[in-house]
Amino acid sequence: MTQTHAKTDAATAMIDGLVRAARSAQTALGSSSFATRQKALHEAAKIIRARTNDILASNQKDLAAAAQSGLTEAFIDRLTLTESRIEEMAVGLETIAAQPDPIGAELARWQRPNGLDITRQSTPLGVIGVIYESRPNVTVDAAGLCVLAGNAVILRGGSDSQHSASLLAEAMVEGLQAAGLPGAAVQIVNTTDRAAVGAMLAAVGGIDVIIPRGGKSLVERVQRDARVPVFAHLEGICHLYIDKDADPDKAKAITLNAKMRRTGICGAAETLLVHQQVAGDMLPAIAAELQQAGCVLRGDSAARRLVPDMQIAEDDDWRTEYLDAILSVRVVDSIDMAITHIATYGSGHTESIITEADDAAEIFLQRVDSAIVMRNASTQFADGGEFGMGAEIGIATGRLHARGPVGAAQLTSFKYVVRGDGQIRS
Amino acid sequence: MTQTHAKTDAATAMIDGLVRAARSAQTALGSSSFATRQKALHEAAKIIRARTNDILASNQKDLAAAAQSGLTEAFIDRLTLTESRIEEMAVGLETIAAQPDPIGAELARWQRPNGLDITRQSTPLGVIGVIYESRPNVTVDAAGLCVLAGNAVILRGGSDSQHSASLLAEAMVEGLQAAGLPGAAVQIVNTTDRAAVGAMLAAVGGIDVIIPRGGKSLVERVQRDARVPVFAHLEGICHLYIDKDADPDKAKAITLNAKMRRTGICGAAETLLVHQQVAGDMLPAIAAELQQAGCVLRGDSAARRLVPDMQIAEDDDWRTEYLDAILSVRVVDSIDMAITHIATYGSGHTESIITEADDAAEIFLQRVDSAIVMRNASTQFADGGEFGMGAEIGIATGRLHARGPVGAAQLTSFKYVVRGDGQIRS
Repeated sequence: MTQTHAKTDAATAMIDGLVRAARSAQTALGSSSFATRQKALHEAAKIIRARTNDILASNQKDLAAAAQSGLTEAFIDRLTLTESRIEEMAVGLETIAAQPDPIGAELARWQRPNGLDITRQSTPLGVIGVIYESRPNVTVDAAGLCVLAGNAVILRGGSDSQHSASLLAEAMVEGLQAAGLPGAAVQIVNTTDRAAVGAMLAAVGGIDVIIPRGGKSLVERVQRDARVPVFAHLEGICHLYIDKDADPDKAKAITLNAKMRRTGICGAAETLLVHQQVAGDMLPAIAAELQQAGCVLRGDSAARRLVPDMQIAEDDDWRTEYLDAILSVRVVDSIDMAITHIATYGSGHTESIITEADDAAEIFLQRVDSAIVMRNASTQFADGGEFGMGAEIGIATGRLHARGPVGAAQLTSFKYVVRGDGQIRS
Repeated sequence: MTQTHAKTDAATAMIDGLVRAARSAQTALGSSSFATRQKALHEAAKIIRARTNDILASNQKDLAAAAQSGLTEAFIDRLTLTESRIEEMAVGLETIAAQPDPIGAELARWQRPNGLDITRQSTPLGVIGVIYESRPNVTVDAAGLCVLAGNAVILRGGSDSQHSASLLAEAMVEGLQAAGLPGAAVQIVNTTDRAAVGAMLAAVGGIDVIIPRGGKSLVERVQRDARVPVFAHLEGICHLYIDKDADPDKAKAITLNAKMRRTGICGAAETLLVHQQVAGDMLPAIAAELQQAGCVLRGDSAARRLVPDMQIAEDDDWRTEYLDAILSVRVVDSIDMAITHIATYGSGHTESIITEADDAAEIFLQRVDSAIVMRNASTQFADGGEFGMGAEIGIATGRLHARGPVGAAQLTSFKYVVRGDGQIRS
């Protein structure tokens, strides 16, 4: 047996053990009362607050090791915990607990002519695997959402966050136990061995869905290798389309906000499409404001005729999620051309049309096949909190099961409950 | 390059071509009006009726070839078309067309404090692959359901039905064209090369979901090899639990019906669990009726003490979907033991409790985690038609996306439509 095989086998055995414990814990969690699940989150929040100093100390260990490894500033920032970030996590759990019960809800109900009464009722999804980078707060957010929806979770955080993530997972476990629930509903993979990720991705029947939370290379690996279903988005190549009937003030304000409010989030706009009838009037002023705000523009030839100091946009630009202060700009002949551009280059995340014309708006909203389509609003609203879902574990661009912001209500399945009075089938 | 590789490459190229055509056709189909999609199904029904003789002649070719191959009687029966079976297919399409529009429906709608109006709206799922055995009627049922929900479909029928299935697929294509829709929304794989199935199962991003329709070996292969998501059930190991508060007449009638009405369908009961407090009173009479109807019983020791001529049930019996006139019987100490038995040996399909006690019923209905849970009703009601869904493409036991009977409404996804008036995120 090669060393790789031995490692894989050990990882598979370890994940198998976690899966067995998770499934058993999920059975109890899934049939627990809403009040019990809420209590688990409140207790965990209390424990996290009480252990602020311990958590900060363990985070210092992670940060000291990370400093040795020469990681980027952004990486270090995501890894760093502070008193206020710890308080945010605790408040986050309380916010999740304040949502309505995602399970046991009557989604639909009807009667059949033979008297059978059929209810479609929400149920937990089962066991969820969350694979994330070295952001300790994801431990708490993800576990909180999973627990509220009656799901067990197996967490695998980035190895650079192992000390802080383990301590936070421990707080979640103790919160469950304080509410009389099995602690194994929240488990963290306590090894930095990357074979553990492979074993999670292969755990068909044991893990019901995997949610990767992190950058493109992590999501790409998960999507490529997973045999278990995945809720994820690879990229957010979000488009803003300024229609010929756009209000110029809204167009300018929304473009600035959609691109520049925060450039590093998946809902940030990456491409601006402008209808040729209004490009001459609107584009120079919008471009000037963007450039003043520090945004680099890359345009097609029509856009560059109007704003000569734009860089040249290559074909690759239309396919690029910059996550930076860069915007590609194209002038389009028609709304059809805008929709075709989005279908060709988009990533199915979020697109917005700026228009005062109801008919154009409806054409865009109906024909663009993305998780989120908007009218006269900034693409940066693509967020579970902004949607009123309380919190989200990520945004999904697949068409199966979850699409758009994934909150606790999206971490559920359903079953049919059929109530009869002795009916037999003829 | 080996011959196998060459075959695989050719199959992949062929499926790639079908996928490209399907995706393009789906874009048009998905934004077509409900009336247009209904018209396509009505036109296809007309064409099928008009071509009854041609379809029968092509079916004769399939049957002649099958006779050479020495296939089973049941296989030949499923392959055989008659005038009345062809009429049933046409009526089936009209029944599908009579359902409400599954796409464009407002699933939920709410307003945010900032004035954003958010709608969750049903959309087509995309491109669906259906892999089925030599049952020509599946061609029409599956294509009809997919088209109604705005999905393109790639059909791969059993090689023994290729003449009849191709002619039926052609009728669906002409129905689409008569309604002004692209014919490529329904395509059939015109090769008996099994590598084509492998290429479909690997078409991640091209085919959104695969639905296998057939026996256990087909479903097993699809579930094992698919990289594309799958809606399916491998087995229907359905349980009937006679509670201590069961009505004896209902218990007897439902058991007879659940087991013996049709033994070969997935909703047929395979295991009977009886509470020990009523086993002595009820089991002998129920067993006698089952045996008189030709059912073989296999019991645990407690059941055999009450009905001595039962065969002995081995552990494997609890895991077996007989699809035949055989029933395994176990006496249980409590409802908890019944629920644990189902969790251990069940397949997550359909289970029914017979009881007059509301509290026991609710415990069973809430705690049993199967796609369908019933009270005082025969498990043979596990069927899309019986649920009022018009028709079904199968029953799913997975927890993701579709669960239970899969009708046109389950072949949809959704998107979020956000309507604003210039909102930007602060």
